[in-house]
Amino acid sequence: MPRRIKKVAILGSTGSIGQQTLDIIRALNTRFQIVGLAAGTNTELLARQIDEFQPRLFSCSAEPDFGCAAQFLPMEGMVTDPEVDLVVIATSGKSGLYPLLAAVRAGKTVALANKETLVMAGEIILREARQHRAKILPIDSEHSAVWQCLRGERTRIERIFLTASGGPFYHFSPARLEQVTAQEALQHPVWKMGRKVTIDSATLMNKGLEMIEAHWLFAVPFDNIEVLLHPQCIVHSMVEFADGCVKAQLGFPDMRLPIQYAICYPERLSNTELPRLDLHMVQALNFQSVDEARFPCLTLARNAARMGGTYPAVLCAADEVAVELFLSHRTRFVDIARIVEETLEEHRAVARPTLDAILQADAWARKRANQISLRYAEAHPRPHKGTPVNDPGIAK
Amino acid sequence: MPRRIKKVAILGSTGSIGQQTLDIIRALNTRFQIVGLAAGTNTELLARQIDEFQPRLFSCSAEPDFGCAAQFLPMEGMVTDPEVDLVVIATSGKSGLYPLLAAVRAGKTVALANKETLVMAGEIILREARQHRAKILPIDSEHSAVWQCLRGERTRIERIFLTASGGPFYHFSPARLEQVTAQEALQHPVWKMGRKVTIDSATLMNKGLEMIEAHWLFAVPFDNIEVLLHPQCIVHSMVEFADGCVKAQLGFPDMRLPIQYAICYPERLSNTELPRLDLHMVQALNFQSVDEARFPCLTLARNAARMGGTYPAVLCAADEVAVELFLSHRTRFVDIARIVEETLEEHRAVARPTLDAILQADAWARKRANQISLRYAEAHPRPHKGTPVNDPGIAK
Repeated sequence: MPRRIKKVAILGSTGSIGQQTLDIIRALNTRFQIVGLAAGTNTELLARQIDEFQPRLFSCSAEPDFGCAAQFLPMEGMVTDPEVDLVVIATSGKSGLYPLLAAVRAGKTVALANKETLVMAGEIILREARQHRAKILPIDSEHSAVWQCLRGERTRIERIFLTASGGPFYHFSPARLEQVTAQEALQHPVWKMGRKVTIDSATLMNKGLEMIEAHWLFAVPFDNIEVLLHPQCIVHSMVEFADGCVKAQLGFPDMRLPIQYAICYPERLSNTELPRLDLHMVQALNFQSVDEARFPCLTLARNAARMGGTYPAVLCAADEVAVELFLSHRTRFVDIARIVEETLEEHRAVARPTLDAILQADAWARKRANQISLRYAEAHPRPHKGTPVNDPGIAK
Repeated sequence: MPRRIKKVAILGSTGSIGQQTLDIIRALNTRFQIVGLAAGTNTELLARQIDEFQPRLFSCSAEPDFGCAAQFLPMEGMVTDPEVDLVVIATSGKSGLYPLLAAVRAGKTVALANKETLVMAGEIILREARQHRAKILPIDSEHSAVWQCLRGERTRIERIFLTASGGPFYHFSPARLEQVTAQEALQHPVWKMGRKVTIDSATLMNKGLEMIEAHWLFAVPFDNIEVLLHPQCIVHSMVEFADGCVKAQLGFPDMRLPIQYAICYPERLSNTELPRLDLHMVQALNFQSVDEARFPCLTLARNAARMGGTYPAVLCAADEVAVELFLSHRTRFVDIARIVEETLEEHRAVARPTLDAILQADAWARKRANQISLRYAEAHPRPHKGTPVNDPGIAK
C-alpha cells in the first residue's frame, strides 16, 4: 500500500502546541503536507512558517503585513477546504470553537488541543461530530493516554484516572499560597506549556477542565473520572475496565509525543528527535489523592460539570479572566478560585443551551468576573509584583 | 447477539491455576460449560470437581478409583474433542507438551499457563499454530499484560519490559543466599502459586523462562525483552512502541485476573469476586534493574535462549530436577543455578530440533542434572532441613 500523505491545516501554528506540531511534521516530512497555517497576532513567526512550509492557505487575526503566495482565508474556510485531511486545533480559549464546529460539520478528522471548546460546548460538538462522522482525536497528554489505553478495547470503561503533576505549589501551605507570584507560577516543574495552561496547572483548574474534556471524548460519567497526583508526570493517565484490569500509558513528559500520536494515528512512527523514557532509570512512580481544600479549582470544575448547561462555559470564561488578572499582577494566585467561584454562584444557567446561549454566558461571565475581581484587586493592591517571598511554609 | 457459551477443557484442573480457573467459571457460570477435566494424581479433588461441574470427559494419570458418568480419555483426545472451544493448559513441566500440540493441530484456542511447553518447543508449536490457525492466549500475568497492551496495536513492538517481584530473597547477600531453606523459598512475598514456580520466582529462573515464552508469543527478539524488578507486583509488564510510547497493564496481584482475561477474551466481564486495585492507595511503584551476579538464572536462561536449538529444553529440565532436589532438602538454593549451568555446559545441542530431539535432550538433561547434583548434595549433606538461619546479612 503506498503511503498516503496527510494534508494538514494547523490553527494556532505560532503557539506552543502549534510550533511543536510543526517540529513533528518537519521530522516526518515525507508523511505530511501543510495546506494551511493560522495564527493570531504573531505575524512575524507566521511569515517564517509560511516561508518554510509553503501552505496554500493562511489566516491571522492581525492584518497580514507580509507578501506571500498563500491565500488569506478565515479559519472556518481553511478547515473546510476539501484538500484538508487533518485539522490540528491548537488555539486557546474560545477562539477554536467556531473553527472546530466548522471542521466537524465538514466531517474532518480533528486533532484537538484546545480543550476549552469541549468544556464550553461538548454536547453540541459531539452531537455534530456523530452526525457528520467527524473524528476528534485528543492531543492533551492525559487524553492521549486514555485513548491509547482504549485502542482495541470494546467494553465500557469502569473508571478513568487522570494524572496531575500537582504543579509547582502542591506542597505549599495555604498561607504560602497567598504569596505566590506570577513569575513563580509560570515555572512548571515538568511540562513546557503556554502561559494560561501553566497557571491552570498550578491551580489544578487544568485537571478540572480535562475531567470535562474526558467526559465528552470518552462518554464516561463525571463520577467515574478521578484525579491522581503523580509528580513524575511519566504515567500520563490510566483506564480501569469492567474486569478490574487497569491500563496505563507512560512516556517521557514531552508534548511532542502525544502530538505525534494524534497526527500519525493509526500509525506509530519512529522519530529519533523525540526523547525516550529509560525505564531502568525511573526508580519510583508516586501517586496520591488531591487535597481539594487547598486546590479548590478541581472541586469548582467538578461541580460546574455536574450542573452542566452553561456552567462549564462560565467556569472557563471566569478562569480565563482571573488567570489574566493574576498574570498582570492585579490579583493574587488564591483569588483565581474565588473569582471563578463567585462568578459561578451568580450565574443563572441555561439547560441544554444553544451555541448562542453558551456564547452569551461566556460574555456575561467575562464581564462579571472582571467586576468581581476589582474587589480582590482593591483588597490586595499590586501584590508581589515579581518579588518572590522567602517563606518556605511547606504544608505537612 | 445471543451470548455463546464457551465449552472448556481444563488440563491440570487440580493444580493452582486449574483450581483458580474453576473459581472464575463458577462465578461466571452462565458463560462457560466444562466439557473435560484432566488431573495428575490428585484423584480425590478431581472426583469433587467432576461432581460439581459434570464434564462429559475426564483424564488422570493415576488409575481412577471413583465411579462417575464421565468418560475417561487421554488428554490428547480430550483437547481435540469437536465440542471443545477453549483448552486451558494448566499442567506443569513437559506434561502439557503433547496435549498442547494436539490442541494446536486441531485449530483450537488454547489458554496457556504451562510455559515450559513454549520454552522447550516454541518454534514447533508456533509453526503448527500458524498452519492450523490455532490461537495461543497467555495466562501468565506478565504475558497477559503484554497481550493486553498490544490490543488494537498494529505496529511492531520496540521493547517488552517483563516485571519481576524479585522473590523473597532479592535483598539477601550471597552468603545469606547459601543458607536459604525450602520453607523460606516457598513463601512468595506477593503471588500465591504452585511450588515449582514459587522456587523459580525466588531464583528468577521464572523470569528467564518468561522471557523465552514472550519471545515466542509476541515474535520479539530476545535482546528486546528486558526485565525490571518491581516489588509491588502491580505493574504486570510493559510494552514500548516504535514512537517511544509505553503501555503498561496494572492490577491487583491475583492470578484470577489474567486467567479470567484469557478465558473471557475478547470480552472483559465484571466479576465481583475478584479484588480491585485501589489506585488511591498505591502510593509508590518502584522499579530497578536485576543484579544478575546474585541471580544468575536469568543470565543462564538468556544465554540458552540465544543459543536456541535444544538448549532451552535442557535449561527447563535441569531446572526442574534442581528445584525438586532443593525442595526435598538434598541440595541448596544456590546450587540450583550451578546444576543448571553445568548441565547446559555439557550439552551437545541440536539446531532446529524435531520434537523427538527435544524430548531426548530433556531426558538426557534430567539424568545428567541428577548426576551433577550428587556432587552438590555430598558437598553440603542435608543442608538446613527446615531450620531457617538467623543471619540477616542483607546486601546493600
